[in-house]
Amino acid sequence: MEGRKAFGWAARDTSGILSPFSFNLRETGAEDVMLNVLYCGVDHTDLHQMRNEIHSTNYPLVPGHEIVGEVVELGPEVKKFRVGDLVGVGCIVGSCGECSPCQSNMEQYCPNIIPTINGTNKDGSFTRGGFSSAMVVHQRFVVRIPENLAPDQAAPLLCAGVTAYSPLKQFMGSNRVLRAGILGLGGVGHLGVIIAKAMGHHVTVISSSDKKRQEALDILGADAFLVSSNAAEMEGAANSLDYILDTVPAFHPLGSYLSLLTVDGKLIVVAAVPKPLQFDAVDIILGKKAITGSFIGSMEETQEILEFWAEKGLKSFIEVVRMDYVNKAFERMERNDVRFRFVLDVAGSNLE
Amino acid sequence: MEGRKAFGWAARDTSGILSPFSFNLRETGAEDVMLNVLYCGVDHTDLHQMRNEIHSTNYPLVPGHEIVGEVVELGPEVKKFRVGDLVGVGCIVGSCGECSPCQSNMEQYCPNIIPTINGTNKDGSFTRGGFSSAMVVHQRFVVRIPENLAPDQAAPLLCAGVTAYSPLKQFMGSNRVLRAGILGLGGVGHLGVIIAKAMGHHVTVISSSDKKRQEALDILGADAFLVSSNAAEMEGAANSLDYILDTVPAFHPLGSYLSLLTVDGKLIVVAAVPKPLQFDAVDIILGKKAITGSFIGSMEETQEILEFWAEKGLKSFIEVVRMDYVNKAFERMERNDVRFRFVLDVAGSNLE
Repeated sequence: MEGRKAFGWAARDTSGILSPFSFNLRETGAEDVMLNVLYCGVDHTDLHQMRNEIHSTNYPLVPGHEIVGEVVELGPEVKKFRVGDLVGVGCIVGSCGECSPCQSNMEQYCPNIIPTINGTNKDGSFTRGGFSSAMVVHQRFVVRIPENLAPDQAAPLLCAGVTAYSPLKQFMGSNRVLRAGILGLGGVGHLGVIIAKAMGHHVTVISSSDKKRQEALDILGADAFLVSSNAAEMEGAANSLDYILDTVPAFHPLGSYLSLLTVDGKLIVVAAVPKPLQFDAVDIILGKKAITGSFIGSMEETQEILEFWAEKGLKSFIEVVRMDYVNKAFERMERNDVRFRFVLDVAGSNLE
Repeated sequence: MEGRKAFGWAARDTSGILSPFSFNLRETGAEDVMLNVLYCGVDHTDLHQMRNEIHSTNYPLVPGHEIVGEVVELGPEVKKFRVGDLVGVGCIVGSCGECSPCQSNMEQYCPNIIPTINGTNKDGSFTRGGFSSAMVVHQRFVVRIPENLAPDQAAPLLCAGVTAYSPLKQFMGSNRVLRAGILGLGGVGHLGVIIAKAMGHHVTVISSSDKKRQEALDILGADAFLVSSNAAEMEGAANSLDYILDTVPAFHPLGSYLSLLTVDGKLIVVAAVPKPLQFDAVDIILGKKAITGSFIGSMEETQEILEFWAEKGLKSFIEVVRMDYVNKAFERMERNDVRFRFVLDVAGSNLE
């Protein structure tokens, strides 16, 4: 039960270049699930960690935190899964279990979460992500992939999808058609459009240029498209949106987006931004507006978005590639040359 | 019914110095109430307007927007007041009446509000505030002073009081003791402490220095005092507050205050600040925190805070002065030399 080898790809230094790397999996504990990885999403956060742009990266670093796999082994106290089950793992693989967020199904806000990559397990070993043949994860941080959901489709839901779903869930079941704005059309943004549409909202994609208009309207099915650099268009849309999901990971002054919100409207920030964000106090005072934050989602919400996706028959837009393409995939992701998310076919990459 | 003279004090230029000024009141329309002013609160916003620091001030400017008066005349369609009634007028004296905020008892968020000072009435005349012997106001913007509330005590509630009450109302009736922070101890802040205490919250006053400790704890009855420049104290209070009412009208980086909030905590901004406010996206993402704005309160909430005050037997801290002291009062207010609000005894100032 111990010391099994896993075969992954790892970054060795701040260049962030990935290359083959094998390591020993930790022992499958009483409440652990061992899974063989089938698919894994490719995300900006991986790249930031690979390049040591967030906080001290422990090299070699095996990225990947949108993981779909098949259960191959269970600890004796795991009752909710069986060998052969299709399961998912997202951004975190541990938390204290004791604090108020942990006790109220919001473990993502535990001050001692263990991230799926560049974290430290309770036994002192480093966490290794899903760019790897196999993983061992505590059952609390494993979700079930619904039967009628394709495993490659499920991957982006485990981080990007739940990041959009968790804050949007509060708007579900409104008795009127809410007017939503989605700012940014990357991994999180494109899923935000699909989720908001599936919730019955009127969805406006807000983008800095006209380039993504067709993608937003024709491919993703948004209802409207707004170019933020067009002052007349922005003026025309003033006070019209109930909320904006802000997925932009770069500096952007918030004032012009706040002006789009109606009274009591909410700007929901989900992307870390390297520079401080700015707004004028009156932008939120007049109109009782709010700037709120949201961090991925709970394990419960991760399970929910998978079921929501399956139930509504939704489709994410992914480009499936093999591991030997991964450095190229990051390069393309960086210049926004992907519609909309790369997913690694890990099992099909013959890593061993 | 027309052209009656009122005697007030007005600013004539950007010096902001006030001096006697008489003018004609507008006609008492069908739905208007004419009142003789008894008391009027003295607020920072008055000063900003007097000095043309907000937007184009129309001189001569008669300030004053926390007005308590006695009804002396009624338009034929006014049913809710009688001559002799004690009434109050706050920051606004008009709104469109048609828009969604107006239709849902949030007229303070109407895009076409008519402010009590430096505004334009529907007939084209300038609005004149409560530093004056009399006023004519549409009944929608007049509230009733409860019988067991002293008129001078009521004055600060009409702007400062409702500014604190409106956002705090959402926390009323919580089934646990909420932990409140009050940032800044001026007109709004001191009333915020009293209101939060009356709602049963545990109240921490947050101040940049130790100077106001005794005032906060002994005079206002706060439960705790936190010096924001003391890093160790701030660290010790991290993640402990459910909300912070931020009444500081000057630039302050929000990060250290956001760190005091617990998961789902709210920083409520009620004071306009001349420079953009700043925060790091992760300060609100990690912990699902919110920065929300709130602008005075509705007429309904203005009536509510008066009744809340009377019912709970609360006491605001005021220094009552006469009109010939008003320039000095502004001078002292500017250097925070007042505990905690000046109220002008207008009727006792023999303005005619």
